[in-house]
Amino acid sequence: MSALRVALAQINPCVGDIAGNSALVLAACRQAAGAGAQLVVLPEMVITGYPIEDLALRESFQRAAARAVIDLARDLEEQGLGYLTVIVGSLGTLPDGRPTNRAHVLLGGEQVAEYDKHHLPNYGVFDERRIFAPGASPCVVSVQGRRIGVVICEDIWQEGGPVAALAEHNLDLLAVLNGSPFEEGKGRVRTDLARRRAAQVGAPLAYVNLWGGQDDLVFDGHSFVVAADGTWLANAGGFRDAVLVWDLEDRTGGQDQGPVVDFAADDAQVYSACVTGLRDYVVKNGFTSVVLGMSGGIDSALTAAMAADAIGGEHVVGVSMPSQYSSEHSRDDAADLAKRIGADYRVQPIAPIVEAFQAELALTGVAEENLQARVRGVILMGISNREGHLVIAPGNKSELATGYATIYDAGSIGGFAPLKDVDKSRVWQLARWRNALAETRGETPPIPENSITKAPSAELRPGQTDQDSLPPYDLLDEVLDAYVEHAEGRDELLARGFDAAVVDRVLQLVDRAEWKRRQYPLGPKVTALAFGRDRRLPVTSRWREV
Amino acid sequence: MSALRVALAQINPCVGDIAGNSALVLAACRQAAGAGAQLVVLPEMVITGYPIEDLALRESFQRAAARAVIDLARDLEEQGLGYLTVIVGSLGTLPDGRPTNRAHVLLGGEQVAEYDKHHLPNYGVFDERRIFAPGASPCVVSVQGRRIGVVICEDIWQEGGPVAALAEHNLDLLAVLNGSPFEEGKGRVRTDLARRRAAQVGAPLAYVNLWGGQDDLVFDGHSFVVAADGTWLANAGGFRDAVLVWDLEDRTGGQDQGPVVDFAADDAQVYSACVTGLRDYVVKNGFTSVVLGMSGGIDSALTAAMAADAIGGEHVVGVSMPSQYSSEHSRDDAADLAKRIGADYRVQPIAPIVEAFQAELALTGVAEENLQARVRGVILMGISNREGHLVIAPGNKSELATGYATIYDAGSIGGFAPLKDVDKSRVWQLARWRNALAETRGETPPIPENSITKAPSAELRPGQTDQDSLPPYDLLDEVLDAYVEHAEGRDELLARGFDAAVVDRVLQLVDRAEWKRRQYPLGPKVTALAFGRDRRLPVTSRWREV
Repeated sequence: MSALRVALAQINPCVGDIAGNSALVLAACRQAAGAGAQLVVLPEMVITGYPIEDLALRESFQRAAARAVIDLARDLEEQGLGYLTVIVGSLGTLPDGRPTNRAHVLLGGEQVAEYDKHHLPNYGVFDERRIFAPGASPCVVSVQGRRIGVVICEDIWQEGGPVAALAEHNLDLLAVLNGSPFEEGKGRVRTDLARRRAAQVGAPLAYVNLWGGQDDLVFDGHSFVVAADGTWLANAGGFRDAVLVWDLEDRTGGQDQGPVVDFAADDAQVYSACVTGLRDYVVKNGFTSVVLGMSGGIDSALTAAMAADAIGGEHVVGVSMPSQYSSEHSRDDAADLAKRIGADYRVQPIAPIVEAFQAELALTGVAEENLQARVRGVILMGISNREGHLVIAPGNKSELATGYATIYDAGSIGGFAPLKDVDKSRVWQLARWRNALAETRGETPPIPENSITKAPSAELRPGQTDQDSLPPYDLLDEVLDAYVEHAEGRDELLARGFDAAVVDRVLQLVDRAEWKRRQYPLGPKVTALAFGRDRRLPVTSRWREV
Repeated sequence: MSALRVALAQINPCVGDIAGNSALVLAACRQAAGAGAQLVVLPEMVITGYPIEDLALRESFQRAAARAVIDLARDLEEQGLGYLTVIVGSLGTLPDGRPTNRAHVLLGGEQVAEYDKHHLPNYGVFDERRIFAPGASPCVVSVQGRRIGVVICEDIWQEGGPVAALAEHNLDLLAVLNGSPFEEGKGRVRTDLARRRAAQVGAPLAYVNLWGGQDDLVFDGHSFVVAADGTWLANAGGFRDAVLVWDLEDRTGGQDQGPVVDFAADDAQVYSACVTGLRDYVVKNGFTSVVLGMSGGIDSALTAAMAADAIGGEHVVGVSMPSQYSSEHSRDDAADLAKRIGADYRVQPIAPIVEAFQAELALTGVAEENLQARVRGVILMGISNREGHLVIAPGNKSELATGYATIYDAGSIGGFAPLKDVDKSRVWQLARWRNALAETRGETPPIPENSITKAPSAELRPGQTDQDSLPPYDLLDEVLDAYVEHAEGRDELLARGFDAAVVDRVLQLVDRAEWKRRQYPLGPKVTALAFGRDRRLPVTSRWREV
């Protein structure tokens, strides 16, 4: 038998844009056909976008998704692509009306098989038992004499179920449709897992993932093929459109090596995830530009650099809003940043406005500090309302964890917060990484060196630095990682050697800040545990680790 | 056999306050013993509070919950109450470490039986498959020769499972531990269901519910007993502490009637739910007072009346923040309201502050309107920071649905929004109901008549009314109810006879406002479908009903 040419189509759909996503699928199939493919595998729920949350429960949406698959099969046939076998994810409906997470197999203008996802993830960011009924039957389709097993995402993460059943089916290939969100280091876990599953079914495994941003999730792509013996046969790279073409040889011989690209380093992946999340939030919500406060500090500098990478510096508006406590170097650093990335830069002093408030309210202490911060928020929202830019928030994960930020200030308002899941230590690291990348490319580093090296300060009172109120960030971020991401109790934290006073202070800050986190803008998940739907805790809670 | 005296203890715990909740349980057991009870049934997860969300996954929390049950059994014994059989809900842990939603049966200083909730709700506001492992075995305990079956909440809402199994056990009583959140009309559904289950097991059913507010949920209590033939034997009333005592007679004779209180009308229940949600958010989070903007309009008037009912008018700070567009009658109405409820009333004109912003920004149109609204938000947050009051938001459900409100204004900032799930039509109705209640009590109606009768307006430009931008509220609320609460598509809405232009306008407004809803404060669920975790939709979505 001659080889079967397989295309893995890694595309970036938009939730709810059923017509637009179908057009992307069709275009990918044309590209695959142009490259000689006979089988095209597409990601999980790519027709509807993913995750669709409670849209799955809406009958009008279910009907539209069902129609789209029929139309796609017909369009493929009408465009002379009826000979292609196309495996594509969408929303299914059982005879009793319950929705499913479905893979449709299309050939010759019609659907020839279907598979409903068996294992429905209901942890972390996932709520699939809320919206989907599980499938019960395995799916094997024959393409040019090859036996192709079909499963969806979580099905390979759980023991038993459809993969175990398929091990008995003498497969030639296991096709896995995925909507697997990015988190740092997950690529290695996925490939190890895929190797085990390929060995289990005794055939190569083709892993096809979505890419693109959707609210608080980023899908990184990184589609690949591994052989039953674990050999790395082909991969598509991350954070980009790709139609990866690879030839499935006969079971009797070995498998050929396909195209392989290097994985990017972790910093590069995290940075790309933030940029992707931001760009897709902007673009998919119909914006063309963003506005943010530029304080001269590292958070707004990194956020602005990401925005420039996402949509072009000329679409970024940076507003310096100095107060009486802002240092001269902060203003210089902000101006320098704007110049480096080519942003529209404006200076809007807040003193006359703060004075008008103070003539009425006469606030002091923290209330006065917060007032300055909130005046900046009102200014940004005003500029946004006037000019149509999306406001983006430069707050970072350490701040969000501890509540060390004024609610409704320029750091925490708006539509999207690119650094929401990036702790302060990582903010500095990513800034250095981004500047180093520019240097290797012979470009101007986007972030002023001074913004990276100076002591962090909110500059809301004379001589203030963050370390007046918080432990040093390297220590703070270690404690946060253990308490938040690993859910360790006080006993475990003390057993690790952390100082009791530091632990008690940090835990108290984290526990009391939940109400602020609930009102925070969306931002991209890049760690194993992000604030938001990944970590659901009550606001009202008297639980204290003791 | 003599009758078995049963106590249903309807108490109001606080999530995470394991020691405090255990003390409440102990006090209820003492009260029950004082009334001669031999069996005390307490609500679902009352030891930990409910719902505890991802706290269930934290090992330190699991250990504390397990310890608390052992301590409770010992304390009962030490206080001479070891003879009582106490059935109490808490967090359990299986031998493999997975947490469960558990009922513990305590007697003689130790645990004599346990039951793990079998059916785990994972729809609406519930995420129980995320955090709990399901139980598999039924539980029947013997108390003074009576056979008592034990199940938890959702177990009676699903066919099959433990109730079906218990039908074979010749029970004398089915004890149901509940954490069932309020929604309008749910009391009738619960009692119909309980009658069916009592008939199914052929024995009386004792339904014990939590009461009190927890973030966006309100538990209404309304604990009761029904006989196998559907006779209403006893009930505790809603929104209050109660130890309801009732005698279980022999199977051979009929059952005696216990104490029965009338159900309140729907308006009274919805009003009580809002007051309970607000009061418990304030108290359980350690606040003693609230501050809100008083515009003279109906939303802030009703919110202030609820706040006065929740924590006393003397703990309510009302701030009138007139602009150049505020009418004289608005100021008069705000002052009148404050006087009626005994609030601390202040007038803070915004003109000098708005002028200071405008000297810098020169905003026009909607941007200028929003600026005025946000200045009010900054003033309230400043007063809150200075004086420690919780800011409460008077925005209503119609506004939140359509996004007809300025984000970060005085209507949408702060910690809690009592009217979040009350649409505008209902706001007027509840205001009239509350005033009528005052009249029947011979008290001054809290809400100025003028605030109820005048045309609603944000007063952000000359002569503005809400109906410049929105359909009339009675029509709007009907469309919203059909589209949001019943998830009807455009076709269904048109088939009901709604005008296509109105439908398209409303759907567009609702779909585009999701990002604002995500940043809204918590507020109490009082309908079958509240915004928040009850309705999970993507922000980024191109889905449009066509």
